[in-house]
Amino acid sequence: MSLADRWLLPEGVDEALPEQAAKIEHLRRTLLNLHESWGYHLVIPPLLEYLDSLLTGAGSDLEIETFKVIDQLSGRLLGIRADFTSQVARIDAHCLKDEGVQRLSYCGSVLRTMPAGLDGTRSPIQLGAEIYGHGGVESDVEVLSLMLQTLSTAGLSSVVLDLGHVDVVRGVLAACELGADQEGKLVELYKAKDLPELDRYVEALDLQDVQKLWLVSLPRLCGGKDVLPRATALLGEVNASIRDAIVLLQKVSDAICQRFPSVGLHFDLSDLVSYSYHTGVVFAAYVPGHGNAIARGGRYNNIGQVFGRSRPATGFSTDVKALVALTDVVVNKPKTVLSPICSSDALWKKANALRAEGYRVVEVLDDLYAGDADFKLDFVGENWQLMPV
Amino acid sequence: MSLADRWLLPEGVDEALPEQAAKIEHLRRTLLNLHESWGYHLVIPPLLEYLDSLLTGAGSDLEIETFKVIDQLSGRLLGIRADFTSQVARIDAHCLKDEGVQRLSYCGSVLRTMPAGLDGTRSPIQLGAEIYGHGGVESDVEVLSLMLQTLSTAGLSSVVLDLGHVDVVRGVLAACELGADQEGKLVELYKAKDLPELDRYVEALDLQDVQKLWLVSLPRLCGGKDVLPRATALLGEVNASIRDAIVLLQKVSDAICQRFPSVGLHFDLSDLVSYSYHTGVVFAAYVPGHGNAIARGGRYNNIGQVFGRSRPATGFSTDVKALVALTDVVVNKPKTVLSPICSSDALWKKANALRAEGYRVVEVLDDLYAGDADFKLDFVGENWQLMPV
Repeated sequence: MSLADRWLLPEGVDEALPEQAAKIEHLRRTLLNLHESWGYHLVIPPLLEYLDSLLTGAGSDLEIETFKVIDQLSGRLLGIRADFTSQVARIDAHCLKDEGVQRLSYCGSVLRTMPAGLDGTRSPIQLGAEIYGHGGVESDVEVLSLMLQTLSTAGLSSVVLDLGHVDVVRGVLAACELGADQEGKLVELYKAKDLPELDRYVEALDLQDVQKLWLVSLPRLCGGKDVLPRATALLGEVNASIRDAIVLLQKVSDAICQRFPSVGLHFDLSDLVSYSYHTGVVFAAYVPGHGNAIARGGRYNNIGQVFGRSRPATGFSTDVKALVALTDVVVNKPKTVLSPICSSDALWKKANALRAEGYRVVEVLDDLYAGDADFKLDFVGENWQLMPV
Repeated sequence: MSLADRWLLPEGVDEALPEQAAKIEHLRRTLLNLHESWGYHLVIPPLLEYLDSLLTGAGSDLEIETFKVIDQLSGRLLGIRADFTSQVARIDAHCLKDEGVQRLSYCGSVLRTMPAGLDGTRSPIQLGAEIYGHGGVESDVEVLSLMLQTLSTAGLSSVVLDLGHVDVVRGVLAACELGADQEGKLVELYKAKDLPELDRYVEALDLQDVQKLWLVSLPRLCGGKDVLPRATALLGEVNASIRDAIVLLQKVSDAICQRFPSVGLHFDLSDLVSYSYHTGVVFAAYVPGHGNAIARGGRYNNIGQVFGRSRPATGFSTDVKALVALTDVVVNKPKTVLSPICSSDALWKKANALRAEGYRVVEVLDDLYAGDADFKLDFVGENWQLMPV
């Protein structure tokens, strides 16, 4: 391994030097404080768990994304977490026996085997919040509101919110009574948004014309507020779960418009990206010039069932490092004071008193201090005093 | 996998529920603020790196402790960090080109394949600080002072500080001109502190009587301040590096006594535990009733050499979770306000204004709020007002 190689970091893995690290730490604290002020309690799940626990209730995407190691103590497979959601579900199901609404937040590193999306990170600092124990529209609205408040507190403006509901695609597919192969092919085409190929494929299926219309309409139900009435007209008669989903989306978007009038609303009723464990409203937030969602989430009822406690749940997550890259986080730096080596009691006490007051006091070692300074400590009269540099 | 198994965490791996998580987060912030007030800049090294980079300059102990995974992108071996020191050395050597003194701090999760010490954790939250670019006694004293200040800020009293210097054992072994096998056996006996077996083994060696005296005296040079004059009398004539080490230890302990008169000082001139990369003064802090060191560190000059920049360095680290377990961290909880669902503009703004003022405002979802509350928001007259519950 050459010298240059030792400097390299693996693809999608980065480190934060002092200036950026200060911004990340500042934003992390600000956002966790915000979540606390909304009633969310911090939990710290472990960085690694038995693989079975970590993947329980999650889709196969997560399995591929998870780094695996062998536990030398038990001989079993462990996984480094690639996502917090199933960990927090386990904590709600197992550790917090309360039957009421539980609001939990988290922030920590996750690792992924493959780079995600266009910025290609494999080591985000994931920050998120979840509500357990409430299945109504109010908790969808609360979690969405907290997500948008999180982005605006981080300094993002011009946010566009993408809204969808997994029951629309599921309801249409169910009403068409297709085989598993055909459903799989259609989901693939919806994910790829390959409309010409979709039209050809649907045309060749052995279905009624109205069913074919539903299938080809789905990916075209995207855009502004007119999408919901169009969806009602096209799909309202398919089944009750689709009607309920559209009504719910209308309520959620009305509430969000009232609370966040400047947020752009976009509906996409065939969006299926990475929603394998979701069961209701799903959403993602975008900012101009950044291809990946900067935050995403949705409802995922009953994920805790495998841990012995089935509860409604909804939540969102974002990446603190991506937020720092997109915004202009301003960190107030403390005033820097240069001090001689604290070899006397008086100077040692003075330096520590200034530190407790919020100054950064640096002992100068052999005149090798390399940064800027605002003050120095001089022995004036009979005391150590702050003097401008 | 049964339901009960899914709840289990691997041995030595734990999670923090809300009460403990709040304490960990509070202490983390308090201690990073302390380090900043001493002039240390936060860096955030990656959680995983190429294994070669991670283990460079470190001893074989660290290799055994490091979880390894295969990078699907490059086919190379990656390691999850088990320690921050070589990562921070790489950052100093590669990223921060400054020739002056560099003070860096860090805080984050590390993972270890095997449980460490008596509390047996494999997932500490390691917090530490390092000085690069200064080789004198002043930086030893500064890092030791910051370690003791960290422990006292965390709320630990009755700290005992263990001091040693790796050149004492090394100097004696060099002066005896032993073979590698014999040195290995002696180091093993020093680590095990097996004095009867040591005496038998040394007696049988083909050495002068004075050399045998040095070897059997070493592990007996432990205790209070009388150890240094005893060491000078016994080993002062062995060679210059031992004399220098003893003089340095005297200076360090004098400075620490002056700054921290209540800290107990203990010398152990044959202590070799986990100091494989150290080159000078080494130290560890203990508290009564806790068998493991709660913090440890020492000088490790030239660890950055393999990254192309050889600099003197000294640092320490501790475990935030272990500190929280040993101390009584008090977290001030915000006042909790219960609010109806914010369906009007006025209530939405009032709730967010209170959050910005430091209240925790919780929207009550179907009367399912489970915690305590101090206030509620009522519509009184023409405004939303805080009312006691």
